[in-house]
Amino acid sequence: MGMIGGGKNAFIGAVHRIAANMDGLIELVCGAFSSTPDNARESGKALFLPDDRIYLSYEEMLDKESRLPADKKMDFVVIVTPNHLHFAPAMLALEKGFHVVLDKPMTFSLDEAKQLQKKVEDTGLLLCLTHTYSGYPLVKQARQMIKDGTFGKIRKVYVEYPQGWLSRLSEKDGSKQAEWRTDPKRSGKSGAMGDIGTHAAHLAEYISGLKISQLCADLSIMVPGRALDDDGNVLLRFDNGATGVLFASQVAAGEENPLKIRIYGELGGIEWAQQEPNTLLVKWLDQPTQVYRAGMGYLSAVAKHNTRTPGGHPEGYLEAFANLYRNFAITLMARIDGTTPPKEALDFPSVEDGIRGMAFIDNLIRSNESKEKWTTFTI
Amino acid sequence: MGMIGGGKNAFIGAVHRIAANMDGLIELVCGAFSSTPDNARESGKALFLPDDRIYLSYEEMLDKESRLPADKKMDFVVIVTPNHLHFAPAMLALEKGFHVVLDKPMTFSLDEAKQLQKKVEDTGLLLCLTHTYSGYPLVKQARQMIKDGTFGKIRKVYVEYPQGWLSRLSEKDGSKQAEWRTDPKRSGKSGAMGDIGTHAAHLAEYISGLKISQLCADLSIMVPGRALDDDGNVLLRFDNGATGVLFASQVAAGEENPLKIRIYGELGGIEWAQQEPNTLLVKWLDQPTQVYRAGMGYLSAVAKHNTRTPGGHPEGYLEAFANLYRNFAITLMARIDGTTPPKEALDFPSVEDGIRGMAFIDNLIRSNESKEKWTTFTI
Amino acid sequence: MGMIGGGKNAFIGAVHRIAANMDGLIELVCGAFSSTPDNARESGKALFLPDDRIYLSYEEMLDKESRLPADKKMDFVVIVTPNHLHFAPAMLALEKGFHVVLDKPMTFSLDEAKQLQKKVEDTGLLLCLTHTYSGYPLVKQARQMIKDGTFGKIRKVYVEYPQGWLSRLSEKDGSKQAEWRTDPKRSGKSGAMGDIGTHAAHLAEYISGLKISQLCADLSIMVPGRALDDDGNVLLRFDNGATGVLFASQVAAGEENPLKIRIYGELGGIEWAQQEPNTLLVKWLDQPTQVYRAGMGYLSAVAKHNTRTPGGHPEGYLEAFANLYRNFAITLMARIDGTTPPKEALDFPSVEDGIRGMAFIDNLIRSNESKEKWTTFTI
Amino acid sequence: MGMIGGGKNAFIGAVHRIAANMDGLIELVCGAFSSTPDNARESGKALFLPDDRIYLSYEEMLDKESRLPADKKMDFVVIVTPNHLHFAPAMLALEKGFHVVLDKPMTFSLDEAKQLQKKVEDTGLLLCLTHTYSGYPLVKQARQMIKDGTFGKIRKVYVEYPQGWLSRLSEKDGSKQAEWRTDPKRSGKSGAMGDIGTHAAHLAEYISGLKISQLCADLSIMVPGRALDDDGNVLLRFDNGATGVLFASQVAAGEENPLKIRIYGELGGIEWAQQEPNTLLVKWLDQPTQVYRAGMGYLSAVAKHNTRTPGGHPEGYLEAFANLYRNFAITLMARIDGTTPPKEALDFPSVEDGIRGMAFIDNLIRSNESKEKWTTFTI
Repeated sequence: MGMIGGGKNAFIGAVHRIAANMDGLIELVCGAFSSTPDNARESGKALFLPDDRIYLSYEEMLDKESRLPADKKMDFVVIVTPNHLHFAPAMLALEKGFHVVLDKPMTFSLDEAKQLQKKVEDTGLLLCLTHTYSGYPLVKQARQMIKDGTFGKIRKVYVEYPQGWLSRLSEKDGSKQAEWRTDPKRSGKSGAMGDIGTHAAHLAEYISGLKISQLCADLSIMVPGRALDDDGNVLLRFDNGATGVLFASQVAAGEENPLKIRIYGELGGIEWAQQEPNTLLVKWLDQPTQVYRAGMGYLSAVAKHNTRTPGGHPEGYLEAFANLYRNFAITLMARIDGTTPPKEALDFPSVEDGIRGMAFIDNLIRSNESKEKWTTFTI
Repeated sequence: MGMIGGGKNAFIGAVHRIAANMDGLIELVCGAFSSTPDNARESGKALFLPDDRIYLSYEEMLDKESRLPADKKMDFVVIVTPNHLHFAPAMLALEKGFHVVLDKPMTFSLDEAKQLQKKVEDTGLLLCLTHTYSGYPLVKQARQMIKDGTFGKIRKVYVEYPQGWLSRLSEKDGSKQAEWRTDPKRSGKSGAMGDIGTHAAHLAEYISGLKISQLCADLSIMVPGRALDDDGNVLLRFDNGATGVLFASQVAAGEENPLKIRIYGELGGIEWAQQEPNTLLVKWLDQPTQVYRAGMGYLSAVAKHNTRTPGGHPEGYLEAFANLYRNFAITLMARIDGTTPPKEALDFPSVEDGIRGMAFIDNLIRSNESKEKWTTFTI
Repeated sequence: MGMIGGGKNAFIGAVHRIAANMDGLIELVCGAFSSTPDNARESGKALFLPDDRIYLSYEEMLDKESRLPADKKMDFVVIVTPNHLHFAPAMLALEKGFHVVLDKPMTFSLDEAKQLQKKVEDTGLLLCLTHTYSGYPLVKQARQMIKDGTFGKIRKVYVEYPQGWLSRLSEKDGSKQAEWRTDPKRSGKSGAMGDIGTHAAHLAEYISGLKISQLCADLSIMVPGRALDDDGNVLLRFDNGATGVLFASQVAAGEENPLKIRIYGELGGIEWAQQEPNTLLVKWLDQPTQVYRAGMGYLSAVAKHNTRTPGGHPEGYLEAFANLYRNFAITLMARIDGTTPPKEALDFPSVEDGIRGMAFIDNLIRSNESKEKWTTFTI
Repeated sequence: MGMIGGGKNAFIGAVHRIAANMDGLIELVCGAFSSTPDNARESGKALFLPDDRIYLSYEEMLDKESRLPADKKMDFVVIVTPNHLHFAPAMLALEKGFHVVLDKPMTFSLDEAKQLQKKVEDTGLLLCLTHTYSGYPLVKQARQMIKDGTFGKIRKVYVEYPQGWLSRLSEKDGSKQAEWRTDPKRSGKSGAMGDIGTHAAHLAEYISGLKISQLCADLSIMVPGRALDDDGNVLLRFDNGATGVLFASQVAAGEENPLKIRIYGELGGIEWAQQEPNTLLVKWLDQPTQVYRAGMGYLSAVAKHNTRTPGGHPEGYLEAFANLYRNFAITLMARIDGTTPPKEALDFPSVEDGIRGMAFIDNLIRSNESKEKWTTFTI
């Protein structure tokens, strides 16, 4: 694995490295960690990389790595730069024949996303989009139960993601994280909704197996002086007739990262919350709620495949992240070996999820600017 | 106190009697419990009423009671009939000089509500509307903290009320509760939103101190064959610029009665859930969340006034209900005695709350039928 | 009902009155509320009692009431004085032919308890001991499930009751509650263990259906200057071979009233906590934990009998207390009417429970003073 | 790092490898994974080790590795065999000059533990004992707050560890985990108490900063046919006068791994539960309980040092485990580099903790067999 971005002090780069390291399947062999040469070099050294695999630009890295012998060069590249710097390195990597792992939202614009999708189709290479929250074992359990028809037809989807960390104008106060995420030139059309609303929308579609067909958005800038939305409330309609609500905020003062989803069908439903991810509440008409727990023997094969510890030994965000990497690595190794990976491992977000995410942002912005109640979800 | 409605097996009638009994301030002295004479008589006997105070119609009761000497006749009447039978007995009671306690929603239509409001103003009598959930001590604590500016300007209000008890077509299956609540002739224009959406809206305005100024509704009938909405998602805008979400459902299969509210200001916020009403989470930017608990010494005067037990001795729904009755009774006794009641006791929902509740239903229905995103809240 | 003790500002007297009032089955008709005449009179007036039923001593009350005609005199007496003042009025009441409701611990000493037991047997009158916590519907559900053999043979009982309200020497600081409870002359041999340890022991035996056969106690006075234990840790052995732990404290600083019990059998177990009493966790080998909730249709008959509200409308401490009164009242009315009460109503703590509670205290003190590990539970 | 034990399907070996991998500081370079040659070879290959670093016995590995040049040979060895196979490889490793990471309980007997302690002292090498639960950031936060005197003098320690996975005689049913843990020849004198009671005792002493001075134990074999204790209840006394309770079980049917600790001082206390490890409740006299959360800015330096993700991105068991490895690795690297490690990193369990753990088992067994209430904790 080679990394683009993720130099010293970059939060998400470190997370990617831990996730990739975790299962001993992936080795970091090179990187272009920063556009600042000193930062790039220091970051590479701190990661025990040899000098000749520390690159000063992604172009240099992709070029030189592509010329290395097959048993030496990296197998894939992970891109952990801000949103506006996803597209160019991803396209170049695919052109040079490298598989790609990409942070979400996939690109800066829907148009870029579509180009990337075409390139993936043309090259036949793998692209994994790190919608982390779909990596949790009990998320997969919930998805499986719904897919199996456990709850009958799905009627309701409530998904929420109220953070509080942008309650002040932190982007003017030296917070690097706040700076780029609230900057239209680096983040894209949307702030909070692009950053976390897309996670919520992905999770809703991933677990329910439904597609959003219409939406009605009310986005806000709650903190004066901010350039992008820091909050949004959205009504949803799904392709099977279910309805729902999605809300996300970065001004819910005092909240950390409580992504939460509830889905109800005719016979019961599920509730899952990211801050206590090892518990899945399964609800029933006329019978007591059941507390499904990660690591237990009664779970589905796909949930078990995505777990490393027995019940009561909590896994968390890093393990969910590592599940994406592990499934991607197993799939990639099978492809290299010419074998068929276990079907459980094929389950990681792809370029199609990236397209829907970018379209979600576009549709939200359109809806927000419209006086009409409903905006049809188009791609 | 005299009761209209609430015969044998009527859920809410029994709740009212328990709530009124609880503090020893109110005595049931007469009733017109049912339009079925046998039921009326049996109900009255089961409540230890003398035969001559068991009436066969509310007209008879109001007429005869109004002729009794002042020290014998009931002081006020409580009306616990289905929605379409609120208005007539309430008007007559006021005309006959009785104060009134009335279940919500206040009337069948907004027009009736306005007539009732006028009558209350003309007669100067007291009317208490039993929006139970505003009776909880920690609801009052939250309201007080927000009123005191503890969290700065309020930005967000999320209120939710997802029940599951109408997930099937129970109204065709012999459930009396389901029958009248889903019948437009008895419930009014709205089903779930009238029944529980109004509670959610009242709670949101009561705690936040804000008024809904615009709304955007998506109501549904999820169970085929049903005549009124059993589900609704609503975007809210408030008069101070805050935004919010209200959702309520009676088809969230497996849910009981989890009314929940979260409100966030610039500096922090609150979270309260009816199923664990003795806990109020108080959230802060940069500091740990605090767990406020009912009955504790650090609470505000109004929270303490509405509590009967020390910390850790849970109070519940009946005590919240009883708080409405107690505050009403204290206010009424003060009026009778010509004294001034303590200001904490003046806090019970009034005819104005009833007007806003009926208007909320009307505005919801209008919004639901509109293609426009926003409907202005009008009365 | 007549009341002995419970004058103004007495916490538990007010609780008893609310509990007795709640269901409209019991009316307070007289009282001897205080040994201070002014307090006695003011308390009676505040409770709307006529002057001639406000007595200045319990002797006067029992004497005068016993001479009233049957349809006027009180049916039973409730005694809510400190522990050292339970025995004398209870004995006199029984002698005068009144049924008795008595706060726990039943008496000042085991010897008094035995005399009371004999008197109850001799007179055939009813005695109800207010072990409140056994009145909760889900406590009864747990008991029923264990009785039905749901979990196989019981192996473990953990019961805990860590309060924090005596973390300081409050008895020297004007707290009336603290004063008498830490005073050997008024409380008896034990402080915390008599006050709340007895509740824990009663609950353990009540739910498990087992009897403590041996115990090993380590009691402490944690706050210097205090005269009675404010803390205790106890190992338990039960008559079927199960073992357990009981701990109770009044110096667990920051705790309110979190009585909690867990019981495990061969196949699963239960967990119930008083501060969230409407939830009962039911645990299983190899299957997800179930969340039983008060008011739901799947509960046992005895749980339903002891509930007033549907699921999700929380009941609390006062309703649990009221269940004792209601069951006592139903049983008493049946006796008066010569009918058979429903078996669910026969379930309230009796003089036998009081004997075991007093013996528990005696055995604890003996064990605490012994160097032997095990003390056999004797009565 | 070289590994002894931990071949295919060995639970704890895989956990150690994940934990060691996580931060990119440690590389697995060799292993003697099994006494079965095929298993040893297959395990090594599955871990991408070169053939010449896959050894067939620990003796071979320690011998050959010790002869490799300094820049090639492993820096330390981790031993993840059953308890009876800890001592010999650990002694040999130390003799050959390797630092050691060792699973708990440290050895088979206290005598072995003392020999190991002496060897560590003589060689000056590092030994890290993997008491995982002390690796959690909020455990360290709790320890720091108590150390800082936040709660005044400590009075009470409650620690509990009720698992349910040995509720049946699984050791006769093909469970490998159950087999060796219930076998006196492989586990040692104690079953449940050695396996998990030692964790509970370590956590109690680690967080409280106190030492157990006396104990009173009641151990049981609850499942007929089992050879070692599967359950135990223990009264504790600490060196500062505090008292406590420790209970652990493997027959609490339906429980997973809910290690939990509560500690109370004069002014407040803490509560931490392993199954939701990112929350620490901080309780106060007269003020609301605070919910401390991992990853937040208000935590102590040592808590922050042991965290990888921001608030709301849950870490779990593997991260706690990885903290031990990371702190060990940082300390080791500093020693190799001749620098001083940051003091936060010096915090991992050592041979002294291992000695206390083995002594705890010995003292428990002595107490269990004694008729005396108190057994003095001796080493």
